[in-house]
Amino acid sequence: MIGRPVPPPLGSLRRATAARAGAAHRASAYGIAERGGPLVALEVPRRAALPDDVVIDIDFCGLCHSDVHAGRGEWGARQLPLVPGHEIVGRVAAVGREVSGFAVGQRVGVGCLVDSCRECASCREGLEQFCERGGVGTYGALDRRTGEYTQGGYSSSIVVNQGYVLHVPESLDPAAAAPLLCAGITTYSPLRHFGAGPGSGVGVVGLGGLGHMAVKLAKALGASVTVFTTSASKVEAARALGADTVVVSGDAEAMKPVRHTLDLVIDTVAAPHSLDPYFATLRRDGTLVQLGLPGEPMPPVNPRPLLARRLRYTGSPIGGIAETQEMLDFCAEHAVAAEVEVVDAAGLNAAWDRMVAGDVRYRFVLDASTLPAPQTPAPPTSAPPTSAPQTPAPPTSAPRTSAPQTPPAE
Amino acid sequence: MIGRPVPPPLGSLRRATAARAGAAHRASAYGIAERGGPLVALEVPRRAALPDDVVIDIDFCGLCHSDVHAGRGEWGARQLPLVPGHEIVGRVAAVGREVSGFAVGQRVGVGCLVDSCRECASCREGLEQFCERGGVGTYGALDRRTGEYTQGGYSSSIVVNQGYVLHVPESLDPAAAAPLLCAGITTYSPLRHFGAGPGSGVGVVGLGGLGHMAVKLAKALGASVTVFTTSASKVEAARALGADTVVVSGDAEAMKPVRHTLDLVIDTVAAPHSLDPYFATLRRDGTLVQLGLPGEPMPPVNPRPLLARRLRYTGSPIGGIAETQEMLDFCAEHAVAAEVEVVDAAGLNAAWDRMVAGDVRYRFVLDASTLPAPQTPAPPTSAPPTSAPQTPAPPTSAPRTSAPQTPPAE
Repeated sequence: MIGRPVPPPLGSLRRATAARAGAAHRASAYGIAERGGPLVALEVPRRAALPDDVVIDIDFCGLCHSDVHAGRGEWGARQLPLVPGHEIVGRVAAVGREVSGFAVGQRVGVGCLVDSCRECASCREGLEQFCERGGVGTYGALDRRTGEYTQGGYSSSIVVNQGYVLHVPESLDPAAAAPLLCAGITTYSPLRHFGAGPGSGVGVVGLGGLGHMAVKLAKALGASVTVFTTSASKVEAARALGADTVVVSGDAEAMKPVRHTLDLVIDTVAAPHSLDPYFATLRRDGTLVQLGLPGEPMPPVNPRPLLARRLRYTGSPIGGIAETQEMLDFCAEHAVAAEVEVVDAAGLNAAWDRMVAGDVRYRFVLDASTLPAPQTPAPPTSAPPTSAPQTPAPPTSAPRTSAPQTPPAE
Repeated sequence: MIGRPVPPPLGSLRRATAARAGAAHRASAYGIAERGGPLVALEVPRRAALPDDVVIDIDFCGLCHSDVHAGRGEWGARQLPLVPGHEIVGRVAAVGREVSGFAVGQRVGVGCLVDSCRECASCREGLEQFCERGGVGTYGALDRRTGEYTQGGYSSSIVVNQGYVLHVPESLDPAAAAPLLCAGITTYSPLRHFGAGPGSGVGVVGLGGLGHMAVKLAKALGASVTVFTTSASKVEAARALGADTVVVSGDAEAMKPVRHTLDLVIDTVAAPHSLDPYFATLRRDGTLVQLGLPGEPMPPVNPRPLLARRLRYTGSPIGGIAETQEMLDFCAEHAVAAEVEVVDAAGLNAAWDRMVAGDVRYRFVLDASTLPAPQTPAPPTSAPPTSAPQTPAPPTSAPRTSAPQTPPAE
């Protein structure tokens, strides 16, 4: 972690944010500028706050493996430039005039979605992750409001509709909270939906960003947790995270005692692999939830154990906004957050390479204060604001771990 | 259907059954006597009724495709001789002295299980189909009580513990009711477990013995039913069974309107086939239940729709005893039974060949009265009975559609 500048006096901060709600601005960022290229410093436009928008100064952004897939075109070509990042924690810098749930200075987060249709059955049920018209991803997605492509959290600021902004409890370390916005909710949602809790046995396959959160969350929910790892070297690490049992999954003898004992298996491995060993661990009516989406086909599923014990093979994508808020509050209550290694902007490319190599325990998080300042002028502070902050500035005792992202005019 | 002899006077029936409760007897049957051979007439021993046994004179037995798999060694070598048949309907001929729930003359049925451990969690919950020590199949299974292999319902009589005998309502045609004991419960159980009912959309893949029951039962449960068939020639037949919609599944255009509309798909096809077209029909949180167990591996499952809509891929085996009784009562209430073609014993081998060719609408049922009489003497009626019938004989107005199976001494 680098040293941090002292925050500016509150008065200047309020003036700046009032201005920024009313005018588009440019954010400093790291992104992919050309196909096949590395992450480079660049700038992205951020819209003037619409009446129900929240302007967020980003403090930290987690690095998710899907950032690499998207950035390197492994999931198909994307609109460039592309600024990845959907595990965003920051503070409210300004709010549109109709925003009611957020106040300037509050600690907030943004996850994988910045909009959805709000009209389909899933959206109406608060399950925006299943939006039937397709939710608007935090980066690389066409934003229906602006007609532009969204740009993510490897960035100094972001403007997001209030319906897709989360409150991040102040008790959580903001860097360690960032991965909750994707890795956290992606594991919390199936754990809750499929009934993990006291008395249940939960298996976790893979011990990366998602897997380590699954262990922590399942433990906090009261379940007994068994970690399956292919690497004997991870046994101690899994125990340190709270696993009750750790099994090296390639060891048939070690797998025997687990046979037909678990209720739920959370499989976080995103490479093709046989599910048969994990179905064998499930008792009647047990559920295997696949969270990773391999680029290559998975081996065939043997339906015999599914029939014999009415096992369920399913998957789960991120989570809805309400459930994400529930998860953040749960994490604050149970002091759960990610294990992170904070990196500077200049270290992003190396961090991606280490992620691909599996060399991270367990999540990289970008310190957004290390992004270079934009080369273009900030909007003039005399621009007429369309809204003013509607709530008091944060108490001066609130921790502020990164400098405000509003750059000085150059 | 052949003509039937007039039933004997009730007095003689009661004397005979009292004797049979107390002594082992031999039943006439059709079974596989040598590996690779056809079904042939043979005899099988039936044990003396234990105190909680029910002796059943068999009237009809459905022909299930699994009979063919087992009989022809396609699911591994079996103890020979093997008398298949687990869709049994008959009448109580005698009861052991501790039997409380059954009376001589009552219409009863036996399905796929004749015993289970009764101690494991599943048995205690009345889910004997999931017995953790393995239930005792109606044929080809080692009977823990006698140390002998069970012999099934292509037979004139059977002796079964009362806990595994079902009451078959008199209002059901006994031949048409026989397939309910396997095809009926195998489809009813997942329909109920996974919530088919008014307002839900149920798809049925395949229109054989199981599929046609799934259509009838789903309709009776109040669901809207869509049948998927590979054969345009089955469209009218599916509608006649009650399907609201029939889709020829190879027709991509015809599949489009069904996309993301169903809650539950019951897949009855026991040959390897891609599930992708059926996952595409399921809305969020929908379930695909596989009931058939192909001998060859299924194609890989694409996990993407499972993740995108939290779909569940599962299976289901037969059903528990309590649920089977519930199903039989439901069928009586809703006048639901199988569409059957009754065959004589001499026609069993031809019927198996036609089943393999898919040439049956929708279930063959053996008329057990056509089995040849045993060549060995019946037990002497003077054998000391260990029990006497404990309940009145059935009313003389009760329909009796087949001759009593007690053979005359020769």
